[in-house]
Amino acid sequence: MTETEPNPWRTLSTETRYENPWIRVTHHDVVTPTGKPGIYGKVHMKGHALGALPVFDDGTTVLVGQFRYTLGAYSWEIPEGGGPHGEAPLAAAQRELLEETGLTARHWRHLAAFHTSNSVTDEAGDCFVAWGLAQEAPQPDDTEVLRLRRLPLREACAMAADGRITDAITLIALQRLELLALRGDLPDDLLAAARRGL
Amino acid sequence: MTETEPNPWRTLSTETRYENPWIRVTHHDVVTPTGKPGIYGKVHMKGHALGALPVFDDGTTVLVGQFRYTLGAYSWEIPEGGGPHGEAPLAAAQRELLEETGLTARHWRHLAAFHTSNSVTDEAGDCFVAWGLAQEAPQPDDTEVLRLRRLPLREACAMAADGRITDAITLIALQRLELLALRGDLPDDLLAAARRGL
Repeated sequence: MTETEPNPWRTLSTETRYENPWIRVTHHDVVTPTGKPGIYGKVHMKGHALGALPVFDDGTTVLVGQFRYTLGAYSWEIPEGGGPHGEAPLAAAQRELLEETGLTARHWRHLAAFHTSNSVTDEAGDCFVAWGLAQEAPQPDDTEVLRLRRLPLREACAMAADGRITDAITLIALQRLELLALRGDLPDDLLAAARRGL
Repeated sequence: MTETEPNPWRTLSTETRYENPWIRVTHHDVVTPTGKPGIYGKVHMKGHALGALPVFDDGTTVLVGQFRYTLGAYSWEIPEGGGPHGEAPLAAAQRELLEETGLTARHWRHLAAFHTSNSVTDEAGDCFVAWGLAQEAPQPDDTEVLRLRRLPLREACAMAADGRITDAITLIALQRLELLALRGDLPDDLLAAARRGL
């Protein structure tokens, strides 16, 4: 089901309307796929989104809590961040995990590739599970106030299931890991750790 | 873990930099939670995001294919759309399912509430599973060219697992349904249909 068909949208003009270090917003005059004139506002993300789900040998994980400016609300999430386009997603995920939690991991596995909000943005991302963990000092950036909470995987998954976690990247990563664990489709040591926690 | 603490961000000024019928982009001068001066570009979504995952009695579902302007790429997704803030999400999901696929459903269940991309946008959404389906004529809006593909749930879930599906709402909905089916945590008729398809 890979599609190679040509783009049915026609772009008549493109104009940058807003830009900052993280996003660029462009306005487009277009012809829609049905042949009608239209407009499109596109939000280009300058970073690639990353999530890292750490799993300790005892079946616990770590969530990061922060107040999200966009939502005006507090949000609990797996360690997340952005990396420059072109950087290997795994390297960026390793850096984000270290910065936010001080954790390094001997083992990493890709969980999912995603587009967060494709009607308006081009944001793409990847999430990973990390295990074989070792603790160093966190290195949060100087605009962040983060809280860390270590908890059993089952509790994180329960938060994802009952609406206490709403962050899409976190939902995708926790659900994917839970599915892989239920199906037994993980390396032995990670599977044992995940089952201890679920 | 519900947080009621005050917003640690301080907003010094807010200015609208771009607006169209679907989004409003504002630039903010802020004081960050660590007390440093900063800026924030926020994308406000005028619609609430919705997804509807239809499950037929035979264990099949329907995916919608379209070329996404933002990505410059084709994307297979569950039926999705947006509804005005204030409208009941279920009513909007029912309308989107009917418009895109012509399906109505006797039964609906909420699957997940989410924020798609909370570092830049305030986009919030809900997704639902729909069953007890009846077929009427699709009513696509006049800018959309959609393709519909009916396929077993297992194939849709495989596409979500192997990267052929990247849309976050679709990943969240399919994974949640698969988890609920594996755990047996669904109404009897839906569980039977889902198990036929998985």
